[in-house]
Amino acid sequence: MSKVIDYAEVQKHKSKESCWVILYGNVWDVTDFLPNHPGGANIILKLAGKDATEEYDPIHPPGTLEDNLPESARIGPINPQTLPEPVKAAKDVGPEPDSQIELPLGALLNLNEVEAAGKKKMSKKGWAYYYSAADDLASKHFNNSVYRQILLRPRVFVDCRDCDLSTTFLGHKLEIPIFVSPAAMARLAHPDGEWGIAQACKKFGTIQMISNNASMTPEQIVKDAGPGQVFGWQLYVQTERKKSEDMLGRINKLDAIKFICLTLDAPVPGKREEDERSKYVVEDTSQAIKDAGGAELKGGGGIGQSLFFGTDPTLTWTETLPWLKKHTNKPIILKGLQCHEDAYLASHHTDQVKGIILSNHGGRAADTAPPAIHTLLEIRKYCPEVLTKLDVVVDGGIKRGTDVVKALALGAKAVGIGRGALFGLAAGGIEGVERVLEILRDETATAARLLGVPKMSDLSPLHINTRAVERDIYDGPANLPGIEGAMKGLWVKAKL
Amino acid sequence: MSKVIDYAEVQKHKSKESCWVILYGNVWDVTDFLPNHPGGANIILKLAGKDATEEYDPIHPPGTLEDNLPESARIGPINPQTLPEPVKAAKDVGPEPDSQIELPLGALLNLNEVEAAGKKKMSKKGWAYYYSAADDLASKHFNNSVYRQILLRPRVFVDCRDCDLSTTFLGHKLEIPIFVSPAAMARLAHPDGEWGIAQACKKFGTIQMISNNASMTPEQIVKDAGPGQVFGWQLYVQTERKKSEDMLGRINKLDAIKFICLTLDAPVPGKREEDERSKYVVEDTSQAIKDAGGAELKGGGGIGQSLFFGTDPTLTWTETLPWLKKHTNKPIILKGLQCHEDAYLASHHTDQVKGIILSNHGGRAADTAPPAIHTLLEIRKYCPEVLTKLDVVVDGGIKRGTDVVKALALGAKAVGIGRGALFGLAAGGIEGVERVLEILRDETATAARLLGVPKMSDLSPLHINTRAVERDIYDGPANLPGIEGAMKGLWVKAKL
Amino acid sequence: MSKVIDYAEVQKHKSKESCWVILYGNVWDVTDFLPNHPGGANIILKLAGKDATEEYDPIHPPGTLEDNLPESARIGPINPQTLPEPVKAAKDVGPEPDSQIELPLGALLNLNEVEAAGKKKMSKKGWAYYYSAADDLASKHFNNSVYRQILLRPRVFVDCRDCDLSTTFLGHKLEIPIFVSPAAMARLAHPDGEWGIAQACKKFGTIQMISNNASMTPEQIVKDAGPGQVFGWQLYVQTERKKSEDMLGRINKLDAIKFICLTLDAPVPGKREEDERSKYVVEDTSQAIKDAGGAELKGGGGIGQSLFFGTDPTLTWTETLPWLKKHTNKPIILKGLQCHEDAYLASHHTDQVKGIILSNHGGRAADTAPPAIHTLLEIRKYCPEVLTKLDVVVDGGIKRGTDVVKALALGAKAVGIGRGALFGLAAGGIEGVERVLEILRDETATAARLLGVPKMSDLSPLHINTRAVERDIYDGPANLPGIEGAMKGLWVKAKL
Amino acid sequence: MSKVIDYAEVQKHKSKESCWVILYGNVWDVTDFLPNHPGGANIILKLAGKDATEEYDPIHPPGTLEDNLPESARIGPINPQTLPEPVKAAKDVGPEPDSQIELPLGALLNLNEVEAAGKKKMSKKGWAYYYSAADDLASKHFNNSVYRQILLRPRVFVDCRDCDLSTTFLGHKLEIPIFVSPAAMARLAHPDGEWGIAQACKKFGTIQMISNNASMTPEQIVKDAGPGQVFGWQLYVQTERKKSEDMLGRINKLDAIKFICLTLDAPVPGKREEDERSKYVVEDTSQAIKDAGGAELKGGGGIGQSLFFGTDPTLTWTETLPWLKKHTNKPIILKGLQCHEDAYLASHHTDQVKGIILSNHGGRAADTAPPAIHTLLEIRKYCPEVLTKLDVVVDGGIKRGTDVVKALALGAKAVGIGRGALFGLAAGGIEGVERVLEILRDETATAARLLGVPKMSDLSPLHINTRAVERDIYDGPANLPGIEGAMKGLWVKAKL
Repeated sequence: MSKVIDYAEVQKHKSKESCWVILYGNVWDVTDFLPNHPGGANIILKLAGKDATEEYDPIHPPGTLEDNLPESARIGPINPQTLPEPVKAAKDVGPEPDSQIELPLGALLNLNEVEAAGKKKMSKKGWAYYYSAADDLASKHFNNSVYRQILLRPRVFVDCRDCDLSTTFLGHKLEIPIFVSPAAMARLAHPDGEWGIAQACKKFGTIQMISNNASMTPEQIVKDAGPGQVFGWQLYVQTERKKSEDMLGRINKLDAIKFICLTLDAPVPGKREEDERSKYVVEDTSQAIKDAGGAELKGGGGIGQSLFFGTDPTLTWTETLPWLKKHTNKPIILKGLQCHEDAYLASHHTDQVKGIILSNHGGRAADTAPPAIHTLLEIRKYCPEVLTKLDVVVDGGIKRGTDVVKALALGAKAVGIGRGALFGLAAGGIEGVERVLEILRDETATAARLLGVPKMSDLSPLHINTRAVERDIYDGPANLPGIEGAMKGLWVKAKL
Repeated sequence: MSKVIDYAEVQKHKSKESCWVILYGNVWDVTDFLPNHPGGANIILKLAGKDATEEYDPIHPPGTLEDNLPESARIGPINPQTLPEPVKAAKDVGPEPDSQIELPLGALLNLNEVEAAGKKKMSKKGWAYYYSAADDLASKHFNNSVYRQILLRPRVFVDCRDCDLSTTFLGHKLEIPIFVSPAAMARLAHPDGEWGIAQACKKFGTIQMISNNASMTPEQIVKDAGPGQVFGWQLYVQTERKKSEDMLGRINKLDAIKFICLTLDAPVPGKREEDERSKYVVEDTSQAIKDAGGAELKGGGGIGQSLFFGTDPTLTWTETLPWLKKHTNKPIILKGLQCHEDAYLASHHTDQVKGIILSNHGGRAADTAPPAIHTLLEIRKYCPEVLTKLDVVVDGGIKRGTDVVKALALGAKAVGIGRGALFGLAAGGIEGVERVLEILRDETATAARLLGVPKMSDLSPLHINTRAVERDIYDGPANLPGIEGAMKGLWVKAKL
Repeated sequence: MSKVIDYAEVQKHKSKESCWVILYGNVWDVTDFLPNHPGGANIILKLAGKDATEEYDPIHPPGTLEDNLPESARIGPINPQTLPEPVKAAKDVGPEPDSQIELPLGALLNLNEVEAAGKKKMSKKGWAYYYSAADDLASKHFNNSVYRQILLRPRVFVDCRDCDLSTTFLGHKLEIPIFVSPAAMARLAHPDGEWGIAQACKKFGTIQMISNNASMTPEQIVKDAGPGQVFGWQLYVQTERKKSEDMLGRINKLDAIKFICLTLDAPVPGKREEDERSKYVVEDTSQAIKDAGGAELKGGGGIGQSLFFGTDPTLTWTETLPWLKKHTNKPIILKGLQCHEDAYLASHHTDQVKGIILSNHGGRAADTAPPAIHTLLEIRKYCPEVLTKLDVVVDGGIKRGTDVVKALALGAKAVGIGRGALFGLAAGGIEGVERVLEILRDETATAARLLGVPKMSDLSPLHINTRAVERDIYDGPANLPGIEGAMKGLWVKAKL
Repeated sequence: MSKVIDYAEVQKHKSKESCWVILYGNVWDVTDFLPNHPGGANIILKLAGKDATEEYDPIHPPGTLEDNLPESARIGPINPQTLPEPVKAAKDVGPEPDSQIELPLGALLNLNEVEAAGKKKMSKKGWAYYYSAADDLASKHFNNSVYRQILLRPRVFVDCRDCDLSTTFLGHKLEIPIFVSPAAMARLAHPDGEWGIAQACKKFGTIQMISNNASMTPEQIVKDAGPGQVFGWQLYVQTERKKSEDMLGRINKLDAIKFICLTLDAPVPGKREEDERSKYVVEDTSQAIKDAGGAELKGGGGIGQSLFFGTDPTLTWTETLPWLKKHTNKPIILKGLQCHEDAYLASHHTDQVKGIILSNHGGRAADTAPPAIHTLLEIRKYCPEVLTKLDVVVDGGIKRGTDVVKALALGAKAVGIGRGALFGLAAGGIEGVERVLEILRDETATAARLLGVPKMSDLSPLHINTRAVERDIYDGPANLPGIEGAMKGLWVKAKL
C-alpha cells in the first residue's frame, strides 16, 4: 500500500518533465499522459502540483481516470492536513479580463479580432486608409453580409478524415484557396510591409498579388521568395504610359512574378470619407497651412486620392489590352469585373488573358456596386462557359472559412483577402499575417469537412443554398454595346 | 342587524382556516370561497385581515360580491375609527424589484428567464460551453428565428376543453411531445447531472437521450428509471472502434436504453469561440503554463474541442451502419441530417434505422447550416414518403410551445431540447429541469387549444402559414452522388 | 402723419379685445385680423403688446403685411427709446421642456404619446394588464407593422374639400369609421371606466362594444346613452350556461345594445407574461402569503388569467350558435376569426350572424397568429363573396389614420381600437378618449383627402399597394374539415 | 559636396514661395514640386521647415524621391544636433477633435454632415419645420433607403476621362442634373434666403424652382439672375382664385421664370409632428396665451399648417388646368404625381403640360406614400411612352451622387433637392448651398465614371439592378376612373 504524500512534495512536480496532480485525494503522476490528453497538455500543466479535482470532476465521467492511467501512475494518497485552502471556483477567479491588455496572436480567434488588435497598434491615419470604403460603406458591408445569406448543405456519412485544401490558379498550385489581393501601403501597418506579407505567403504556399502602390519596390518584396513561390503584380496604367512601360520592364525581369493583374474597377478614385476625414483630424487643427499661404482645403482627399494621381481613366478593350500585350509576355488577369457581360467579353481574349478577379475594389470604388458573389451567380446563370475558359477568383468581404467554401462551391478557384492581411500585419508583423492565413485555413478545412467535402474541387452548387441571393440577381437584358438583339432572358452571343 | 366589528378582530382571521377581508366597509368571511376564487386563493390570502377595497374595486364589476358570496358570509360593518392609515396604491409600493434577487423557479415564466437564472449560478467556463455555437452564431440564432417566420392559423368553434399532448417515437409513448436531446457535461450545471435530468423526464413521461459525453456513466443515469421510462444513448464512433464496441456492450445490457442515436452532424468539432475564449479568460492570465514549460496556446480549444478527441471522421453509409448493426440489436436513429437527400437515403435503411433527428447540432457545427425546419420543409417538398417510413424528430432553437406545434404540424413526431434542459438544471437541479418541461408543456397545450387542436396528431400543415420560409428552401437539383440525371424540379429516385 | 407711440402704450393692448403688435418699427392694431390669421390667433396673442419682428420676419415674404392689413391698422411708429432689450432668439429660449411635466391633452399628437401619458398615470399592475400580449408580443407588434408594409397610392386632381368619414355597421350609421372594441377592466385606467368611454363614443357618433369583463355593469355603462347611440355586448360563454343566459336576459332588455359580439379567439387564455409578472412585482415581495399558509405561486397568473375563470372552451358551430340564437334575438357578430375558412363558414349563418370581427385578440391569445390584414387579404383572394354577405370589421394594431384607410380600402366597414381607448381614458378620462378619437378622425380625414377620396365608400384596393403583404399570405389548401377535395389553388365550396 | 544645414535655416523656408523639408537626413527644396504633388500642396506646406520623414516614409516606396525631384533640389544634409525633439506619431497627436468646433464648409464631406452643421446654426423652430415629415416619417426615410435597394452595374474598359454631367429640362440646358425643388421659408435658415439659393444655382448652371411660400418675393429672388439662368415658379392654387391670378400676373412678367410648377401632392397639409411639436416647445411654456384670452391649443399646427391657409383642395383635371392655361402662357409642369395612372393622364395634356415631377412632397404629405422611384418604375412597366411625351424629373431622398445616376438611369431628366439646399443655406449661406451642389456634382461624376458612363444620356436601366425594388411595385389593375375594363396585367388605354 502506498504511503501518504505531503503537499510540499507534490509541489516539486510542476513541469513537463515531471508532472503530478491531486485528484479525489490521490496523487497521480501524469507526465507520460501529457501528450495524449484530449484537452491538450497545457490545461494539465496549469494545474500541476495542485489539487485539480474541482476543475476535473464536472467534465469527466466516473471511470475516466482508471481507463486512461495505469494503476502504477497512482503515487499514493495526499496528506489532507498539508493541503492549502481550496482554490476558489472558476467563476470567482476575478474581474473580467482587461480589454486594454494586448492578447497574444494565438488568442485572436477570428478576423474581426485581428482587425481590432491591428487597429490598436496603427496610427489613426493608417487605420482610416485601410478601413475606409466608398460613401456609406454599403458595398463594403454587403460584400460580407451576402455570404450570410447563403446557407450550407452539410452531408453526413462522408469520410472526411483528410481534407485537401489545395487549388490551382493559372496552372500554379496553391496550398490553400486563399491568396492576398493587391492592397496598397502595407508599411502603414508595420515596417515589414509587403515583404512581410510575402514571408507569410511563402509559409502557407499561396499567392501574393503586389499592389501597384506598394510601399516597397517589387524587387524588395520578392527578394526572399521561396522556390516555386508565386507573385502577381498589379498594374494601374499611368497616363504617362512611359512610366508604366518602364515599370513593366522591371517586372518582366522578376521571375517570381508570374502574371500581371490589370486593375479595372477604379478608373477614378472612389469617395472614401473615413480616409478623407482623417486628413482633417490629423492636420487641419493647426494653423500651419494658413501660415504657409495654402488655400483652404475643400472636399478632403486622403491617402486614397493621392495614390490615384496619374492613373489613366481612358482604358479600353481595343487600345489597352494590345498595348499591354506588347509590353509583357506574362499572362494577364483582369481585376474588378462586376457584371457578367464584362466577364463574357474577357472570355474572348484568352490568348493572353487567363483569369479574372470579380471584385468591387473592397467596396472602395462605386458604393452600392454588387458583391463578387452577385457577379459569380450572374455568370453561372447567363454565361457559365466563362468558368471553363478562364480561372475566376473573387475578393471582398471574406471573413470566415464558410465564406471560402461558398465562393468555391460557385466556381471560384480561390478567394482573395486584402484588409485581412493588412490588419494581420498591423497586429503582429509576419506572424500576424500568418495568424490570419492560419485562421482562414483552419476554418476552411472545418467547413469543408462538415460539408462532407474531402477536397476543394468536390465543392459544387449542390453544397449550398443560394436561393435568397438569386432572387436579387440582375435579370434585365444583357448589356453588350453594339450587339443587336440583346434581350431579357435571351443571351445573345456577341461577335468579337 | 349585525354588530360593528373592530379592525383588531379582523386581524385575527388571516389564515386559510379563517380568512376575513374588508370590502366597501363590510367585513366578509371568505374562507369557504378561497378555493373557488378565479384569481387563486393566494391573492386573497395576501389581503387577509385587511381592507381589500382598493385592490378589489377596479377589477370587479358591481354585483360580483353579491353573486359569489352568500349573505351569511357578511360578518358586519367595520368600525371605521379602528382602521389604520390606508395602504398606498400599488404603483407606489416601492422601487423596482432588485434584479439581483434570485427568483423562485415558479416565477421564471419562459425559457429565456430560465437561461438567465441558470447563467447566474454557473461558472463562466460552464456557461460558455453551453451557450457557445459555431463562428458567428448565425445558425444558432436562425434555429430560433425561423419559428418566428411561421404564422399560426387558429380555428374557432372547436371544442378544445381537453388537449392530449401525447405522441409516440419508435413505438414508445411520450406524455409530451418534447424530449431531451443528447447534450454533454450536465454536471457543469449542477451536481445532479444527467441523473437529475432523468428524474425530470420520468416525472413528465418523456425520453432522455444520453450524451456520449455525459459527465456520468449510463449506468448511473438510468439507475432510478421508472417503469416504462425510455432512454436513448448517443454514439460518437471512436477511431479506436474497440472503445465504441465496449461501450455498446455496456449499453446493450441496459434495458432502459431502447435505442442508439448515431450522431453524424459533427464529424469534426465546429469552432465555438465563446467556449474557446473561456479558456483564455479563466486560465491564461496566469504565468503557470510558461513556468511549467508549456508552449503558447494557439487558436483556443475549449471544452468542446477536448470532447472530440478520438472521434472518427470517416463514417460512411457502407461501412459504419453494418458495423453498428453487428454490435447492437437495438433500433438505430440517425442524428444530424441537414438535407432532404440524406433523409431520403436514410429511408432506405429501415431494417434497423427507425428514426432520424433533423438537427444542425444546435448551431455548434457548421455555421450557416440550415435549421431543422428547412430540412423538414425540403423533405415535405421532395420526398414526403420519408415521413411515413421513419419517425422524424427535430431539435434546435425550440423556446416556445408555439415552436413545438409548428414542428409537429410539419410532420415531426416530437421536438428535442438541449440547452434548455441544461440551463434548467443549472437554475434549480431536478426542479429546474421540471420547470422547463412544465413551461413548454403548458405553452404547447395553450398553443394547440388556441389553434383548435385537441390532440397532437390532428396538427397538420393546414394549421400554419410557412410561406415566408418556403421561399428560402433549397430548390436546386438533388445531390445524390452516383445517381444519373438528378435535375432541378425533377426528383430522381436513387437505386439503392 | 401718425404720432410716435411709446412702448408702455402698446403694452396695454394684449387681449383678444384689443391686440397691438410692433413690426418693423411700426405699431399695428391686428385685433380684427386675429380670426383670419392662417397660423391661428394664439400665435399672435402670444406676441401681443411686443415687438414681433424677429418671429414674423423669416416666415413672411415682403408685402404680406400690406396685402393683409388696411393702412388704417397702422397706429404709427414706435418710439425706439422706449423699447426694452430685444427678446432672445427662439433657439436660446431655454432648456428642453421637462419630460416629467404633464402635457395638456391637446399637446398629445398621436396614439403613442397618449399611451405614454396614460402609462404615467396608471398603476404598474393596470398598465401591465393593458400593455401585455402573448409570449414574445410578436403578433401584437406585427398587428401594427403590417400596416407599414402597405403603401398608399395618392391620386391628384381630385376635389377633396369635403371628406365624409361616415360608414355603416349592421345598418347603423357611424360618424367615423373607428369604433371601440371590447376591452376589459376600464376602471383600472380611470374611475369613469366604461361609462366614460361611452360618453366619448356618444360625442363622436360611434359604436362601443362592451366587454364581458367590464368593470361596470352594462346598465351603468349605457345609462346615459344618447338618442341613436349604438352599443354591442361581448359574450364569453360560461361553462355554467345559466350564468350566460341570465346575463343575456339582462342584455336583451337594454335597447341601446343592438347586437351580441361572441368572442371566439380566446377559448383559453393566452400567456401574457407582462401581466403575470406584475403579480410578482407587486405581491410576492411580501411574506404575507406564506404567513397565511398559501403555497408557492407557480407560473404567474395575472389579471388576464383570473378573468378567464369559468369561460367555456367547448364552443362549436353546431352547438353554440343554436344555443345563443335561442337566448337572444339581437343580431350576432363573431369576433376573432383568423383565417378565410372560418370567415367562409360564418357567411353560411347569415340568418342571425350579421358581421364578423377579424382579430387576433390584440395579440393576446396565440402569439404569431396573423394580423387581421392577413385574414382580410385571404378573404379577398379565396372567398371575396364573404365581404358582401357579412359586415366585416377588423381590430388590432391601429395607430394612424393611414391604417384606417388601408383597412377600409381592403373592404373593412370600420376598424376597432382597444388599448387606444383605454390609454386615452387613463391619460384624461372622458376627454382622453375623446382626444384619441379626435386624433384618429383627423388623421383619417387627412389620409383620405391626400388619397383623393372624398368618402369612405370610395376607398378600394386601387388606392393601396399591398404587394409586400400579399406574398406572405397563406397559399396552401383550404382547411375545411370534412369537405372532400380541398386543394391548393382550388377553392372548393363547402356544402353546409 | 553640399554643406551641412542647420535646422534654424530650414525653418525660414515655410511658404509657397520657398518651401524646404527634411527627408531621411537631407534638406530638399520642394518649392517647384508643390503644384505637382499628387497629394496636394497643402500636405507638404504643413510640414514645411520640418523633418517630414515620419509622415513621408510609410506611404512612399523607395525611389519615389529620386524619381520626382532633380538632384539639384537637394540642398544638403541636415545638422542632426540642431534638430528639435521628434514630433510625436500621428496617433498620439492629441484628443479626438472637438465635435463642438465648427468645421469649415470644405470639411463637410456629404449631405448628412451639411445637415448636421446647418442644424447647429438654426433655431429649433426652423429646423423642426425643415426636418419634419408626415406622421412616422416612413415615406421620408423610404425616399432615401429605396436608393440603397438599387445596385449599380459598373462596366470596365470604358474611356471616362471626361464626364459630361449636363442634361436638359423643357429645352433648357442644366450643367448638372440636380435642380433645387420648391421649398418654403428659406430665410428660416439664413437671411440670404431664396435669393441666396439663386446665386448658388447661377454658379452651377442649374434651375431653381421658387416656392409659392418663399420668404422673399419672386422679384427679389430673380433680380440678380445671370444670362440664361432658369427659374420655375411653384403655384399652390388659392381658394380665392383672384389672389393666384394676381400672382400669376406678376410671374408672367418675369422673364427669368420659364415655367409654372403646379403642386398637386398636398391639397391639404400632412401631419408634421416635429413641426407641430415645436410650437409647444417654444411657445406654450409661457402663460401668455391664457393671459391674452386665447383658447387652449389643440393638435398643434406648426409653420406647415399655417402656410396651407387658403390653399384650394378642389383642383381637378377638367377645371383647374384650363383655368391655369388661361392665366399664363408659360409651360406648366405638374408636381407630386405618385402613381403611373396620373402620369399617364398627364401625358394627354401636352399642349401646355411639358413635364412632371414625381414626388411625395418630401414625405411631408401622406405618410407611406411611395417614393418617386416606385412611380418611375411603375411608369416604365405600364406606360413607358410617358417618358418620351413629357420631361420627367423626381425629388425626395437624394443624398448621394449614386442616387442621381440611378434616377437618371430609369429615365428621369434630373433630380431635385429640397431640404439639402435649405440645410446648406443654414450651414453657410450662399457658400453652403454651393457646397451642397458641389458635393452632389462631384459624387455624380464619380459614380458615372465608375459606371463607365461618359455622359448623362448614356445612362440606361442596363446600368442598374432594380430587382429588389421591382418586386414591391404595385401590380394591381390600373385605376382610371370611368375607363372600362382596366385589368391587372393588361394596360387599357384611356380615351381622353
